[in-house]
Amino acid sequence: MSHRIGRTVESLATRRRTTRVFARDPVSLSDVLYCLRAAVQAPSGANRQPWRFVVVDDAKMKERVRAACEEQEKRHHETVEEGLKQWFRTKNITWHKPFLTEAPILLVVFSDQKMPYATESTWLAVGYITLALEERHLSTLTYTPSYPDNVREVFNAPRDFKLETILPIGHSADTKAKEERRPLQLSIYRHSWNIQA
Amino acid sequence: MSHRIGRTVESLATRRRTTRVFARDPVSLSDVLYCLRAAVQAPSGANRQPWRFVVVDDAKMKERVRAACEEQEKRHHETVEEGLKQWFRTKNITWHKPFLTEAPILLVVFSDQKMPYATESTWLAVGYITLALEERHLSTLTYTPSYPDNVREVFNAPRDFKLETILPIGHSADTKAKEERRPLQLSIYRHSWNIQA
Repeated sequence: MSHRIGRTVESLATRRRTTRVFARDPVSLSDVLYCLRAAVQAPSGANRQPWRFVVVDDAKMKERVRAACEEQEKRHHETVEEGLKQWFRTKNITWHKPFLTEAPILLVVFSDQKMPYATESTWLAVGYITLALEERHLSTLTYTPSYPDNVREVFNAPRDFKLETILPIGHSADTKAKEERRPLQLSIYRHSWNIQA
Repeated sequence: MSHRIGRTVESLATRRRTTRVFARDPVSLSDVLYCLRAAVQAPSGANRQPWRFVVVDDAKMKERVRAACEEQEKRHHETVEEGLKQWFRTKNITWHKPFLTEAPILLVVFSDQKMPYATESTWLAVGYITLALEERHLSTLTYTPSYPDNVREVFNAPRDFKLETILPIGHSADTKAKEERRPLQLSIYRHSWNIQA
């Protein structure tokens, strides 16, 4: 598994709007379908398979998605408190989301909130997707709009389906190093809290 | 990836309390650590790595976990509405959770709710764990107690850490067939809702 856990474009936090994170090379729809075939094998609450996926590879539709997201992000960035604003600046996070049109394909992930553990099950399946993408030498990042409910309307999705994330999919053009991970022993305990494994 | 997506003991819904779902064969802690090394490579909101894992392989501690869960489940089963009670009967779901002591290892998964997208990121990482387990020919199921906050106290975990799930880990002794999946085309749209991919 180790060969597949290094390449995903992982951190939305440090996207710079002046740098492409996805190359222009096209993505095969059959690779995306491969990842979705893996995703739907994930376990889910009462096996209700609450996920729905919208595959977007049309340039005009991607523009609409980006416009809807950026409108919400702009509002979000204007209204957050000063501490978070500073943090955004440190991390070069702006309301610009160019990767939403740069990536050849957007995979928009919804969950059926009527089902038990819908969000949890859907994100578990997203983990299957990110690993399957790496297996196919493709990259993604997990982007969730600040106001997903407004963006949901772009897709005419019913109200009881929550937009969980948008996965832009492409070949990585990211030059930034992988984000650091905490040492493993700081995340693992044995038998009880704060007991080192 | 296809060889790794079939064997996970996936559905809590159809556990029968009279049948072992895990064999008595021991599980190597190094296999569990392998899965955790994969898990912590998952992307997370602002790369805050909100997951914490408690590895439980002590028989007495597993008994305590099971007792705490069953106490809550019993209460839950007594108080749910009649429709759900009937559904539980159809699916052979009771408040008994023998797999919590049968499995050689319990992996208890928490998320730091102070971090952005803590639950989402943690469940994405759980997807890495279930796939890594299959790679090591191990099985699990994703069990979340009905009142996870009460069970959290067994582990002395701080209040701002949510108990997301308990993954019992072992070699499968499950004779039941894998749960059916919906046809792929019922989960995938193209460009917009209800447009077949």
